[in-house]
Amino acid sequence: MPSEYRLKRRVQFYETDMAGIVHFSWFFRYLEEAEHAMWREAGLSIAGGSGIAWPRIEASFEFHRPLRFEEEFEVHLRIIGKDARTIRYEGVISKDGTRVAVGRLAVKCVSKTPGEPMKSIDIPPEIDALFQLARDA
Amino acid sequence: MPSEYRLKRRVQFYETDMAGIVHFSWFFRYLEEAEHAMWREAGLSIAGGSGIAWPRIEASFEFHRPLRFEEEFEVHLRIIGKDARTIRYEGVISKDGTRVAVGRLAVKCVSKTPGEPMKSIDIPPEIDALFQLARDA
Amino acid sequence: MPSEYRLKRRVQFYETDMAGIVHFSWFFRYLEEAEHAMWREAGLSIAGGSGIAWPRIEASFEFHRPLRFEEEFEVHLRIIGKDARTIRYEGVISKDGTRVAVGRLAVKCVSKTPGEPMKSIDIPPEIDALFQLARDA
Amino acid sequence: MPSEYRLKRRVQFYETDMAGIVHFSWFFRYLEEAEHAMWREAGLSIAGGSGIAWPRIEASFEFHRPLRFEEEFEVHLRIIGKDARTIRYEGVISKDGTRVAVGRLAVKCVSKTPGEPMKSIDIPPEIDALFQLARDA
Repeated sequence: MPSEYRLKRRVQFYETDMAGIVHFSWFFRYLEEAEHAMWREAGLSIAGGSGIAWPRIEASFEFHRPLRFEEEFEVHLRIIGKDARTIRYEGVISKDGTRVAVGRLAVKCVSKTPGEPMKSIDIPPEIDALFQLARDA
Repeated sequence: MPSEYRLKRRVQFYETDMAGIVHFSWFFRYLEEAEHAMWREAGLSIAGGSGIAWPRIEASFEFHRPLRFEEEFEVHLRIIGKDARTIRYEGVISKDGTRVAVGRLAVKCVSKTPGEPMKSIDIPPEIDALFQLARDA
Repeated sequence: MPSEYRLKRRVQFYETDMAGIVHFSWFFRYLEEAEHAMWREAGLSIAGGSGIAWPRIEASFEFHRPLRFEEEFEVHLRIIGKDARTIRYEGVISKDGTRVAVGRLAVKCVSKTPGEPMKSIDIPPEIDALFQLARDA
Repeated sequence: MPSEYRLKRRVQFYETDMAGIVHFSWFFRYLEEAEHAMWREAGLSIAGGSGIAWPRIEASFEFHRPLRFEEEFEVHLRIIGKDARTIRYEGVISKDGTRVAVGRLAVKCVSKTPGEPMKSIDIPPEIDALFQLARDA
């Protein structure tokens, strides 16, 4: 797993609200888009595990400037923490080199069997190995 | 199943776009909200069937007037067609008695087994019975 | 302005994701719905000011349990902080008396003139008065 | 204005619902994304006009197959009709060469003055000229 990822994105019309700017709830989706793209770059899918899922346990954003329709921006995502069962990401959103917002996301690894409640488990070794490689690189 | 349903709703901030009005994609969600509420009123859940799902096959809207933040509106939903495997709904959206938009939705009954493609099936008798009752009422 | 508000809500189908639970981005919208409903109860509109807006400066959530389609839940919103230019809210989301998630939202008061950047201003006295009343009540 | 446009896109996690497929409301947003990208390619912005807006008057989709998380798809958008005040688009959504859904969108040109109701107007000559060029090309 690479330890960082840069997602390029453009603001869509339906992401704006009547204040003329991107609704704040969208920033959390931008962060998640970058997370999933980072996984794909490592040859993985966040939804690909056999019975594994990654529910969010914490999510936060500080908003510094607005984003507007058609503006291009970047999400610079980094893994800032990891233990046996959780991964912590930080994503800096910027446009034209100016910081727009900073978000954090913590996810945990769970096993998911249809009809049963999700249960926290250790991150599987094959995924963990990719993180180790990234850390050592 | 009742043959019609009236959903009262208020426009939320995140449903508006930079044009200051509700984004048109939301009208389809309003229609679906009314559909699901109609099912609940009949003691059913659109998601409750054992291995049954109701994918949308057609959806359309004509838009006559905009909706704005905090406005109250009504979705008047009616079943306008039904055959062995499909149901057709029409929803008239109005505010203060004025027609805002008219939508149509066609859904089909499918069996859904994890890992297999969805397969069109006849509407189960117990659901059909409720529709018959509604038609005869 | 009342110092707290309880919003009752039901999970809609389009709020769920392929994990079978409400997508985490929706919790931020639930929190905002409660905020706007609290303002309405005070006879105000978050969008009603002449040239005033309330952009979000911070938003966060801790997620304890998932929410699923058609479940009924409550957002218990409270004002937990206020200074000349900002308001801080906390919202506890629960179902059947069990805590599902806890969110925080900080908003600031800005003046908004078309074509100009938003500028932080003091909360207008007439809005502030309502908060004072609430505090003293 | 080019008379057609091809948008490449990947399904995002938050676009799926508990049925494990893209929620139908998203197809309307995909269509609109292609529309706005087509305008950008022509050097225009759907939101760029001085006091001009393009509200949707009709929107429809027929759904043939589902889209799933991380699948790549294409929106092939074409202008299929135009008169003095309206433009009609058709968008064919496909993945791996297989048709997934077909949508239609009709928009009208309106003048938009803050505080006044929107008023239908003729498409401005400079925008119309681009369409003429496209038609003649």
